Amino acid sequence: MINETYKAMLGGKSVIRTLSEYATARGTEIGYDNVFDYSLGNPSVPCPSSFTKAMIDMYETADPVALHGYSPSLGNPEACRTIAESLNRRFGMDYTAGHIFPTTGAAGALAHALRAVTKPGDEVLTFAPYFPEYHPYVEGAGARLTVVPADIESFQINFAAFEAALNPEVTVVLINTPNNPSGAVYSAETLDRLAGILRAKQAEYGHDIFLISDEPYREIVFDGGTQPYPAKFYDNTLTCYSWSKSLSLPGERIGYVAVNPRATDAELIVPMCGQISRGTGHNCPSSSMQLAVAKIIDETSDLSVYETNMNLLYDALTSIGFDVVRPGGTFYIFPKALEADANAFCMKAKEYDLILVPSDSFGVSGYFRMAYCIDTDKVKRSIPVLERFVREEYGL
Amino acid sequence: MINETYKAMLGGKSVIRTLSEYATARGTEIGYDNVFDYSLGNPSVPCPSSFTKAMIDMYETADPVALHGYSPSLGNPEACRTIAESLNRRFGMDYTAGHIFPTTGAAGALAHALRAVTKPGDEVLTFAPYFPEYHPYVEGAGARLTVVPADIESFQINFAAFEAALNPEVTVVLINTPNNPSGAVYSAETLDRLAGILRAKQAEYGHDIFLISDEPYREIVFDGGTQPYPAKFYDNTLTCYSWSKSLSLPGERIGYVAVNPRATDAELIVPMCGQISRGTGHNCPSSSMQLAVAKIIDETSDLSVYETNMNLLYDALTSIGFDVVRPGGTFYIFPKALEADANAFCMKAKEYDLILVPSDSFGVSGYFRMAYCIDTDKVKRSIPVLERFVREEYGL
Repeated sequence: MINETYKAMLGGKSVIRTLSEYATARGTEIGYDNVFDYSLGNPSVPCPSSFTKAMIDMYETADPVALHGYSPSLGNPEACRTIAESLNRRFGMDYTAGHIFPTTGAAGALAHALRAVTKPGDEVLTFAPYFPEYHPYVEGAGARLTVVPADIESFQINFAAFEAALNPEVTVVLINTPNNPSGAVYSAETLDRLAGILRAKQAEYGHDIFLISDEPYREIVFDGGTQPYPAKFYDNTLTCYSWSKSLSLPGERIGYVAVNPRATDAELIVPMCGQISRGTGHNCPSSSMQLAVAKIIDETSDLSVYETNMNLLYDALTSIGFDVVRPGGTFYIFPKALEADANAFCMKAKEYDLILVPSDSFGVSGYFRMAYCIDTDKVKRSIPVLERFVREEYGL
Repeated sequence: MINETYKAMLGGKSVIRTLSEYATARGTEIGYDNVFDYSLGNPSVPCPSSFTKAMIDMYETADPVALHGYSPSLGNPEACRTIAESLNRRFGMDYTAGHIFPTTGAAGALAHALRAVTKPGDEVLTFAPYFPEYHPYVEGAGARLTVVPADIESFQINFAAFEAALNPEVTVVLINTPNNPSGAVYSAETLDRLAGILRAKQAEYGHDIFLISDEPYREIVFDGGTQPYPAKFYDNTLTCYSWSKSLSLPGERIGYVAVNPRATDAELIVPMCGQISRGTGHNCPSSSMQLAVAKIIDETSDLSVYETNMNLLYDALTSIGFDVVRPGGTFYIFPKALEADANAFCMKAKEYDLILVPSDSFGVSGYFRMAYCIDTDKVKRSIPVLERFVREEYGL
């Protein structure tokens, strides 16, 4: 018989998806060039040509039976070794191939990491603003998600609220840095303080608390900065990564879980992911894609457009009078709306063909997200429209 | 804290995988050419060159942002339409794009189909001999698997045992035809009788019973025959497919669930699969792979080698004196072992570098499986070894 739980979920359509579909429909009316669609976090720059070349080379020269054959259930060992060595080089870690579990993007990585270190009923804490898909990921693992209120000064961590939320049922803290939707890059100070609290609470509760660190935007950091590597600060860290943003391959579903070698039962977690994979039907990402990303392991797309767009928007928003924290990375900016009801604000903007996402589904009210992974020309053309909208609707 | 359920699963290594690893290790000692490795169901023929060409063409000419962008959450609509039209043409069905949910192979398809039409605690029936990975798929959905004893005369369905096993808690019957490991192709008579019983039991129990039909071997049928299409016989059918075998792409993880338009709530099941996908981290198969299989929708690899190998082995086995049902399809054959303990039989064969899989994990005792997706030359060379093994060990 049809499953009533999943049937009941059919009503709930994502706000982002709804707005994106509106933008597409509106585009067919007035030309998509005239819709200032800041709804969707879909990379706007192509994958590097070296990726395309690596794939074509493999398709032209490799034995197809081997190239497209089953991946070993814990991933291609050579790809895992290459990933481990890259992380070791870049972040001073000491991963081996056995600490890397290739997955179908960050969604697959989070699904495995959460199942590996929670049991049904456990509590998972995350920090607002947060990516709303954390709900199905956490609930799919049988755990429950509690959202810690935001630090609205800087979108780092509201430590007072965090300490108030911690309790012995918490077995995972889930972070996302650089952050969707705020663009915040958690600083070394933030990560150090977070790690200190987690270590103290592990001792107090007498059980492990795992840090699951969701890092698909790791390579998109502005002003020449870098994202401090969370696993470097805290032993019980599972790092979830995707090449969706850094290589502009969201549709190819390729990422990994990296298990900190100093985590409790570190050597068991990748084999456990292999077991988890059987029940979810995950059974490894594409074998050829594992090889391709390994071949260009330290490369990225040309990500500079995101910084260009961020600077244009940040300057325009602040000069208009918006209250906005300058993003340290990602391709999102998260200004305060000009009225308390972010939804009302975004509905008014829509009348100007400005597609902005209200903040409520990210766990804070009164803000909006702009995904500026769009052409710079469109960003520039949107600014006078934004100015007119704010002037006409709010008299600014 | 580490999940004890998944940790406990770490001990249980698959017999097939263990034998395959032994074969590889033995190959490094004596040369893999001298190991008659019948353990693993990994296709031995290359994908068609048209697949390679389609992929290279897309990589060379398509806009990479579009090619590698996020797939719509219910799959690429154009790929879904092409799949639907192909099934309609071939099997006289009336699918639309909205009845097709692209998945990461048959494993992904089964994971979604099972969750869509069971609730935790439901009973799923399958027929021995069966693919042992059905356990994690069914248990991952929270249901429980009951195995109906085999029809050892023909490896069709043991209907007496099936009727005895049916009870009101059964909400899914899971079939696999052509069958791994027996090679049986369920006949129209079998499917018609199965459908009749299911319709009667639906009426008697007052609830739906879904037929989930796992069909990755659909295109590998011998003697010019075809697999009668199970959904044609029974309305409440979810068809699970993979291109792993027909296009020799097991590592690329591409398949689908097709929902019979006459099933209960048929229009809801694909959208429900989209919801299920969020919690498992599945989130669509590769976007480029969806397009590629659609481009060569009615093609297959050159699958004729499997029939050549089957005939060689069937003739050899019967002339040696084995009791064996002639396979109608797949690349498996499933003879009766020469002693009651199939494991002991296979261990003796291993001494002759004949790698045979004992039948116990397939839900029947006293048989063994040979996966003859290997070079025909090796099949030929294995026959005198098989003869010598049987002569020396069993005096046949």
